[in-house]
Amino acid sequence: MLILGIDPGSRFCGYGLLQFEGRKVVAAGCEVIDVSATKDISERLKLLHEQICSVIHEYKPDLAAVETMFLSKHVKSIFTLGHARGVLLLALAQYQIPLAEYSPREIKKAIAGNGNATKQQVRYMVDSIFKLTQKPAKDDAYDALAVAYCHFNRLRFI
Amino acid sequence: MLILGIDPGSRFCGYGLLQFEGRKVVAAGCEVIDVSATKDISERLKLLHEQICSVIHEYKPDLAAVETMFLSKHVKSIFTLGHARGVLLLALAQYQIPLAEYSPREIKKAIAGNGNATKQQVRYMVDSIFKLTQKPAKDDAYDALAVAYCHFNRLRFI
Repeated sequence: MLILGIDPGSRFCGYGLLQFEGRKVVAAGCEVIDVSATKDISERLKLLHEQICSVIHEYKPDLAAVETMFLSKHVKSIFTLGHARGVLLLALAQYQIPLAEYSPREIKKAIAGNGNATKQQVRYMVDSIFKLTQKPAKDDAYDALAVAYCHFNRLRFI
Repeated sequence: MLILGIDPGSRFCGYGLLQFEGRKVVAAGCEVIDVSATKDISERLKLLHEQICSVIHEYKPDLAAVETMFLSKHVKSIFTLGHARGVLLLALAQYQIPLAEYSPREIKKAIAGNGNATKQQVRYMVDSIFKLTQKPAKDDAYDALAVAYCHFNRLRFI
């Protein structure tokens, strides 16, 4: 089974793929979709949609997990994050991929054993568990693998 | 020229079409996309995307105007509204329709001369200006015509 984990963002959107069989799990890739160069929000959403669709088309994941939204002081960023997340959920529905959603707290707890883990701790744990040969440049890619791992962890105990 | 006005919503999304030539303007239709029966948010977004695409495909508007988001006490509704709005902006970008955005205040001021106008006042003014023969059942359709009118009003003065 292949899980696609997504760390949504309207400028940088992380995605990570985990292949698992029973209790064994390996990272099958992670990357960041970078649409930050496109200033116009509609065009950025179009690009994000095209790129996540091409990831889904290439890897054909069986399941997907996406981080939920959380309140931020920056109202505008809540709005644009909501827009990006809507487009990502749309793409998953268009490819009929079953979706699970996890809060940042659940994800950090699953990967680092602590719901308040820092970005560095998440990165360290993802690195330790999956022994990535190609290190992603941005945290969003690590976060996306953590999202996928959180879902794997849930499934493992079902 | 044909303007598509959109009052975004994740359950009920109003749309209205205004045909104008110089200073003359007539309503070319308004309706509500009702996806409220679909409980799953991803499926609802998919349905909303399909339906707005079919509206765009049918009417081929030259321009579009969408209401901006505003802060609400209901955090969850901000998130889902953001999702729906993202999907609507995506559809407009996919059809390459130039987009304008207006705040609720600007829209109410344009249609009713008062940025704090009530839903009833907006409805009354839309009715008075466009003399709709088929009365929409829901306010969202009137609001969508008001959004399109706000854009027409702006264009008229350029």
